Amino acid sequence: MTEDVDVRPLELHDDRFFDPAPPVRRIARAIYDEIKDLPIVGPHGHVEPRLLAEDEPFPEPTALIIQPDHYVFRLLYSQGVSMEDLGIPTQDGAPVETDPRAIWQRFGEHYHLFNGTPTGAWLDYEFYHVFGLREKLTGDSAQRIYDQILDQLEQPDFRPRALFERFGIEVLTTTDPAHSTLDHHRTLREDGWGDRVRPCFRPDAVFAIASPDWNEQLAKLEAAADRSISDYPTFIDVLEERRAFFKEMGATSTDHAVIEPHTHRLSDAEAGRLFQAARQGDAARDDERAFQAHMLMEMARMSVEDGLVMQIHPGSLRNHNRAIFERFGPDMGGDIPVRAEFTRNLHELLNAYGNHPAFRLVLFTLDETTYSRELAPLAGHYPALRLGPPWWFHDSIEGMMRFRKQTTETASIYNTAGFNDDTRAFCSIPARHDLCRRVDANYLAQLVARHQIDLDEAHRMAHALTYGLVKDTYRLP
Amino acid sequence: MTEDVDVRPLELHDDRFFDPAPPVRRIARAIYDEIKDLPIVGPHGHVEPRLLAEDEPFPEPTALIIQPDHYVFRLLYSQGVSMEDLGIPTQDGAPVETDPRAIWQRFGEHYHLFNGTPTGAWLDYEFYHVFGLREKLTGDSAQRIYDQILDQLEQPDFRPRALFERFGIEVLTTTDPAHSTLDHHRTLREDGWGDRVRPCFRPDAVFAIASPDWNEQLAKLEAAADRSISDYPTFIDVLEERRAFFKEMGATSTDHAVIEPHTHRLSDAEAGRLFQAARQGDAARDDERAFQAHMLMEMARMSVEDGLVMQIHPGSLRNHNRAIFERFGPDMGGDIPVRAEFTRNLHELLNAYGNHPAFRLVLFTLDETTYSRELAPLAGHYPALRLGPPWWFHDSIEGMMRFRKQTTETASIYNTAGFNDDTRAFCSIPARHDLCRRVDANYLAQLVARHQIDLDEAHRMAHALTYGLVKDTYRLP
Amino acid sequence: MTEDVDVRPLELHDDRFFDPAPPVRRIARAIYDEIKDLPIVGPHGHVEPRLLAEDEPFPEPTALIIQPDHYVFRLLYSQGVSMEDLGIPTQDGAPVETDPRAIWQRFGEHYHLFNGTPTGAWLDYEFYHVFGLREKLTGDSAQRIYDQILDQLEQPDFRPRALFERFGIEVLTTTDPAHSTLDHHRTLREDGWGDRVRPCFRPDAVFAIASPDWNEQLAKLEAAADRSISDYPTFIDVLEERRAFFKEMGATSTDHAVIEPHTHRLSDAEAGRLFQAARQGDAARDDERAFQAHMLMEMARMSVEDGLVMQIHPGSLRNHNRAIFERFGPDMGGDIPVRAEFTRNLHELLNAYGNHPAFRLVLFTLDETTYSRELAPLAGHYPALRLGPPWWFHDSIEGMMRFRKQTTETASIYNTAGFNDDTRAFCSIPARHDLCRRVDANYLAQLVARHQIDLDEAHRMAHALTYGLVKDTYRLP
Repeated sequence: MTEDVDVRPLELHDDRFFDPAPPVRRIARAIYDEIKDLPIVGPHGHVEPRLLAEDEPFPEPTALIIQPDHYVFRLLYSQGVSMEDLGIPTQDGAPVETDPRAIWQRFGEHYHLFNGTPTGAWLDYEFYHVFGLREKLTGDSAQRIYDQILDQLEQPDFRPRALFERFGIEVLTTTDPAHSTLDHHRTLREDGWGDRVRPCFRPDAVFAIASPDWNEQLAKLEAAADRSISDYPTFIDVLEERRAFFKEMGATSTDHAVIEPHTHRLSDAEAGRLFQAARQGDAARDDERAFQAHMLMEMARMSVEDGLVMQIHPGSLRNHNRAIFERFGPDMGGDIPVRAEFTRNLHELLNAYGNHPAFRLVLFTLDETTYSRELAPLAGHYPALRLGPPWWFHDSIEGMMRFRKQTTETASIYNTAGFNDDTRAFCSIPARHDLCRRVDANYLAQLVARHQIDLDEAHRMAHALTYGLVKDTYRLP
Repeated sequence: MTEDVDVRPLELHDDRFFDPAPPVRRIARAIYDEIKDLPIVGPHGHVEPRLLAEDEPFPEPTALIIQPDHYVFRLLYSQGVSMEDLGIPTQDGAPVETDPRAIWQRFGEHYHLFNGTPTGAWLDYEFYHVFGLREKLTGDSAQRIYDQILDQLEQPDFRPRALFERFGIEVLTTTDPAHSTLDHHRTLREDGWGDRVRPCFRPDAVFAIASPDWNEQLAKLEAAADRSISDYPTFIDVLEERRAFFKEMGATSTDHAVIEPHTHRLSDAEAGRLFQAARQGDAARDDERAFQAHMLMEMARMSVEDGLVMQIHPGSLRNHNRAIFERFGPDMGGDIPVRAEFTRNLHELLNAYGNHPAFRLVLFTLDETTYSRELAPLAGHYPALRLGPPWWFHDSIEGMMRFRKQTTETASIYNTAGFNDDTRAFCSIPARHDLCRRVDANYLAQLVARHQIDLDEAHRMAHALTYGLVKDTYRLP
Repeated sequence: MTEDVDVRPLELHDDRFFDPAPPVRRIARAIYDEIKDLPIVGPHGHVEPRLLAEDEPFPEPTALIIQPDHYVFRLLYSQGVSMEDLGIPTQDGAPVETDPRAIWQRFGEHYHLFNGTPTGAWLDYEFYHVFGLREKLTGDSAQRIYDQILDQLEQPDFRPRALFERFGIEVLTTTDPAHSTLDHHRTLREDGWGDRVRPCFRPDAVFAIASPDWNEQLAKLEAAADRSISDYPTFIDVLEERRAFFKEMGATSTDHAVIEPHTHRLSDAEAGRLFQAARQGDAARDDERAFQAHMLMEMARMSVEDGLVMQIHPGSLRNHNRAIFERFGPDMGGDIPVRAEFTRNLHELLNAYGNHPAFRLVLFTLDETTYSRELAPLAGHYPALRLGPPWWFHDSIEGMMRFRKQTTETASIYNTAGFNDDTRAFCSIPARHDLCRRVDANYLAQLVARHQIDLDEAHRMAHALTYGLVKDTYRLP
């Protein structure tokens, strides 16, 4: 770099995200120091198992950091950068920007949009710690930074498994459809990585009976099961088999995304009728809602029987922006939350299984109003329940603080499930866990500084939040 | 104690619950010092009047502290301790743990669950200030602590009335069903305690016309009134008589729990029809909803006439966990909040009575989203309205802070009703008031430190929050 | 003043509203110092254009400060001061208090009600900076203060245009009905003030087809358009003409108040049918709801065509207190918020226009639960969307902090619209902007002190929040 270059140094302060008031900061640092190097346990996320099975070098920076991460490009899109100019591939193959350096340049020029956002904090961590950068990303520095990252990606210690080790990950769970043959997980097991990378059973697609591609999804399930599924009892049989297979392949959990977490058991006859309607392509939205409510009951029943931990992720209205969905497909930043309700919706499920010692249900929400009103009271009563960490838009400094402040007093930290990184962006994993550890440390430091707990208690709680609770909640050995 | 014993000292810091930033803490302490010794006024709660009428010694620690307090045992239950193992009596008499020391031991072993909860803060205060303990409760110390509390409970100055004096209680209001003969209150009046312990008229049971035990409740009301109630006009007459009787016995308020605070006057004919349906056991849920909405209108009308302050506690879905309810009865930690709405639900009642100078309505909520959206705007306009303090799950450090921050700017503190301890746990009363005084002092200290008010104003406001507003709101002489 | 007078000094601390922790306060001051003297841009408010067109001296203090401002008198009313005693004129001319000094005295005696409220903070600023007072308003000082303000109001530099200059206002937008002939704006243009005072097109009254005065409103629109409007196509034509006229007169925006922000396009035939029903006085509430949903679609379409920025202010249930409305009219402090929903309600509008580069939509809410759940995710995706500042009850220190903390992490500050003062009280304008600048500076200082952003970034963001974003959002030249 010559002296003409405007280099804005990238610095990560040791005390970042801690309260600036010295009595809190001092304690936060002490608590954080005890947990910062604990192994990472990631019980829920969206990293592709292929990545770790194949262990190929990552491509160049744009394909690694921008294009797979809707957290990143949605904000650029909201400020007028077109999806095409970010090189997001179209469904119909219409041409988009193909020069990764041009895309990276646009990213650099808009990087100030991320000031004050968790995505900005994660990216800075990634740049600093994973790629060793010491210069802020701006329009000026964009090409230099591109080069530096590119250089690194060519090194062997930047291949996925090497990074996995370096990040200190103990176990990482992927998310896999019911029809998955889990081939990548098989490879990983054969390579001795089976305890470290685990699948999770997510059968949403075969519960969405009003979806136009439901029959296609069912066909995939039939292929995986190697049997035809012509009636509802067989469907249930196959699901039980698939769960057993996932469990055999290391799974400890299932996951279920629904718009509302409604639960209600149908008679087998009624469930069978809806299943046949679906096969005829005749299932309506209301049928789907009833079938999903019923299948949540069935998933809970199976969890009692096979011990897989059940997760529910409700409240996202997917693909709100139809034009973007049709042109670019799902997961493009256009999923928008709706209001959630748990007290009445989960009444039937919790009455049936909520007191059962073999059952474990982890609840997530995108509606923060449910933290103090519904989720903390439910989790502070039902033994089967644990609260998942603040999810998606709320996986942020302020979001995590609100979660702790709105749940701990009623549910205690011990009815929460530790952290999930929930990411597709492999290189952001340590950044996300570090941010959470810092916020948890800071939250506990506030309690200590206000003399609500003592430092010993804070250390015990910090360990639970970082490591103990997640392993216990997800029944990870 | 020998030197082998691991004693973890129990300390209550003088500045607990105050912001750690020195500029705030200093002011908070100054404000708190001026209010900490003001008399306790408890205008709403669930202490049994029998306790103070009979003034018998309390039983041993488990029966005093654990078994009557669902705040305590729900959290143990949520972490897998069975209700039976806590000695909670079953409805059918099936055997449960009978050794109070074994139960206390379980409590001690799980006491870390209360770290960071208000229940933990109240218990620590109670242990420290009421029972003089200087050791933390743990599995190790449980039996020692049991012994120390047991010793104290045998002393005369630990009998209810002695504690009432020691706690500095000026007045405590109980909650009593419409059919209550108020015999214990009569005893208290005869003993010169009538101004100090007052009843509150809570007729919920006879408004719940779809409840299977409604006819039984009505029969109790008939017995108390010593007349048969065969039609709706008589029902109204009797309610007016009962209110007059309660008022004569010292009541200044009524209380009404409903799922939603819907208000709507029926014609007398329609109300009469629903009343007869109830007598036939034919009232449906919708009938009940309509009848309750109507009876809230009637209660408001009567309040205008007799001057009793009306309270509404909406939004709790009682007995969510049916298995627990059937085995152990109500108030077992399984009451879960639902969303609340006030703007439209109270429209008719406020239009009828909200501008009337004789009317006073105190609103509570379990749905914090209504603080800034509905309750503060309503209370900042209607002269009849006051906002009750943060209720139940929200009666906590963070909960009280949220309440003040979300209501003061729109409603001012002067449209709020001071504090309610709302407790069944007599020995927790001073702990709860102290915690509230600390949080209020801290809230006002933040305003002073940010130069929004001056210290004189803060002192005036602190006195109002602690003493003036509660007496004025509840029309306590 | 003699030495017997109890003078309580009025002081405005230089660091007011900043966090008291020194590391934050220091930075907040530095950020604030860079923005405090930037010009005021007020893109939405309710100042009467007549005021500036005629530029007459203000009347005495009561008519200036109390009577036009429902923020002020609603709190007095809530504490038992009658509207009559505040001299609020009745609809039927029934007599009310006519002595402004007696009203001012009541105001002084109740001034403590405003402690801790934004209204109190604005009034103190106004007293101190606009009128140069150095004594707190109390019952004791009320008449002295009245005299001092009265003296000032007689000076030429206290006439509206002089104050406009002194306040440093660059541009102020008024709110004007669709039928307005904008005569005052014409006068202002002729006086060279056209770029400084701009109208905003607010056609709510002609969309409220179930309102009893709809035909009267339509008649006013006909008069303004100088043509009869006997069918729906003509209605649309006239609206387009009016928008063009407003734009010609300097408007850059439209504004739309609805109870819920529902959007749905009707067929022209169906819209025409509803229009005719309205003309017959037969339109029902549901018809109105459908017509409003349709007209929001039409307003968006026209915005795409003419470039006027569209604002939606949803969620206020107007005139909740019928007795007050009937006796005193609208805007009397009795408008109460209801729950809001945006994700589904705006689905159709955003799908039709939300990706269009010519479209700009600014959303407001009275339901803070929508900040993090719906508004930030929508604004963090759709390029057409910007979030308006915290509105009405939430335009306060805590309210602005909640807004920033609940929106920035998902939407970034760059999808927000800067500040609106939204006031009828002309002399409160600088107070409101100053308060917002202080809170924004403090918010950014917290980010700096927690090492989330650096000071350079904070300065850039502060400038955007104060000046850049509002001009860009509202397309002000």
